[in-house]
Amino acid sequence: MSSERVKPDERANLRKRDPNERGAYAGEDGKARAREETRVLVARLAEWQERLYAEGRQALLVVLQAMDAGGKDGAVKHVMSGVNPAGVTVTSFKRPTDEEARHDFLWRVHAKTPPRGTIGLFNRSHYEDVLVPRVHGTLDEEALRQRVEAIRDFERHLAREGTTIVKFFLHISKEEQRERLQARVDDPEKRWKFQLGDLDERERWDDYQAAYDDLIGDTSAEHAPWYVIPANRKWYRDLVVARVLVETLERMNPRFPKEPEGVDWGTLRVK
Amino acid sequence: MSSERVKPDERANLRKRDPNERGAYAGEDGKARAREETRVLVARLAEWQERLYAEGRQALLVVLQAMDAGGKDGAVKHVMSGVNPAGVTVTSFKRPTDEEARHDFLWRVHAKTPPRGTIGLFNRSHYEDVLVPRVHGTLDEEALRQRVEAIRDFERHLAREGTTIVKFFLHISKEEQRERLQARVDDPEKRWKFQLGDLDERERWDDYQAAYDDLIGDTSAEHAPWYVIPANRKWYRDLVVARVLVETLERMNPRFPKEPEGVDWGTLRVK
Repeated sequence: MSSERVKPDERANLRKRDPNERGAYAGEDGKARAREETRVLVARLAEWQERLYAEGRQALLVVLQAMDAGGKDGAVKHVMSGVNPAGVTVTSFKRPTDEEARHDFLWRVHAKTPPRGTIGLFNRSHYEDVLVPRVHGTLDEEALRQRVEAIRDFERHLAREGTTIVKFFLHISKEEQRERLQARVDDPEKRWKFQLGDLDERERWDDYQAAYDDLIGDTSAEHAPWYVIPANRKWYRDLVVARVLVETLERMNPRFPKEPEGVDWGTLRVK
Repeated sequence: MSSERVKPDERANLRKRDPNERGAYAGEDGKARAREETRVLVARLAEWQERLYAEGRQALLVVLQAMDAGGKDGAVKHVMSGVNPAGVTVTSFKRPTDEEARHDFLWRVHAKTPPRGTIGLFNRSHYEDVLVPRVHGTLDEEALRQRVEAIRDFERHLAREGTTIVKFFLHISKEEQRERLQARVDDPEKRWKFQLGDLDERERWDDYQAAYDDLIGDTSAEHAPWYVIPANRKWYRDLVVARVLVETLERMNPRFPKEPEGVDWGTLRVK
């Protein structure tokens, strides 16, 4: 599975990564096998989350980025439903409010980082604050460079203080995006999800891909790796995301706390 | 199921409510049937939550109270795991921080009320701010009366602004609490959950029951009902909580949004 991981200072090279990839899950029964394996992984995720919560010493921050209709909401739903919501916070970052916009771009993000013992999931993130101004030309190169540097410093700081970070880019093809947006248009029950602005952003597809290429490369680090997830097939996307999360928690290896000292456990009787 | 609901201005009468109650689920296969039905209800809960989120106009606030070891964490885990955490926030209120203590007692609670489109679950709540000072005698009667009034006013305000409120008291017997606390002592893996202070609070059992009796009666309202849940049997507790939540969401009846106007849906082609 490590082929999805972008090595530090490597470019993401999205053009060479196949969004249709399905690894060992080709063939007729691939989808069914992947779904079953995902089910098992989600159950293990729930168990690890319980240990993380009990231990209360480490946090896990999960960043989800994608082009519009890339499947961020779906991945959250399919991978994180089943985990006890007492230990998970999902934050969707939208256009900044007036108050947020009066602060530096990391202020609202920092406020939502997960406390120890919990998993925090960012649906969009501080990465939008580099991507959008680059593609729309609203910040110059030096300002963009400074933002990237600030992100690297910020994530290194979080990691040092006990937060493990994983970042996912859900990689779909331009044609897949077209089909998904068209499906929202055609299905009256899905039209509320559709925004005309998505079509304007779609016209900047190549600019966004190039921006992601650089940004992923510039910010993938040992302590905060990027994973480029083949995401044309939703079931394969969910499987890989679930697997990376379980593997990450295995490495974090949270333990149930030891019994407190100062109590004579063997003889204590509750009356 | 409505026997669990406390009518406005009725006393809770905990002594007359059997924590061992299992309704229509007596008999050998009762537990298995209840578990299966809970599974179905949790799936429906997940569907309703999705509609609530899509609609984005109403919120659901769920308050969970119980004596120590009453099963609040277990109920959250069993009823809410399976719901998309993107639309659920669980807040556990602990001893107030220094900053929180410098504000009025509703300040930190108000800050955590669920935004429209989401479910907010309070594990303990503003009700502790009446129960504890009453039992420990740290506030006089007039001050306690004012807090109850403030809670009623606060919840009525939330309800008027679009938040549906349901409140659960998980009702266990004193003997059941003894067994559960003893189990924490005896099992090295559970000892981290045990606090010596729980034994002091246990000595005030009768005072807490009396305080709940009054408080539940004083604050059960049409727009914010209390439910006293028989909770000695965990599987019955989970079933009733899940059922009340599903019935509540059915009454709220959130709808998927209509399609936005101003778009010629029939002819729009994504290129």
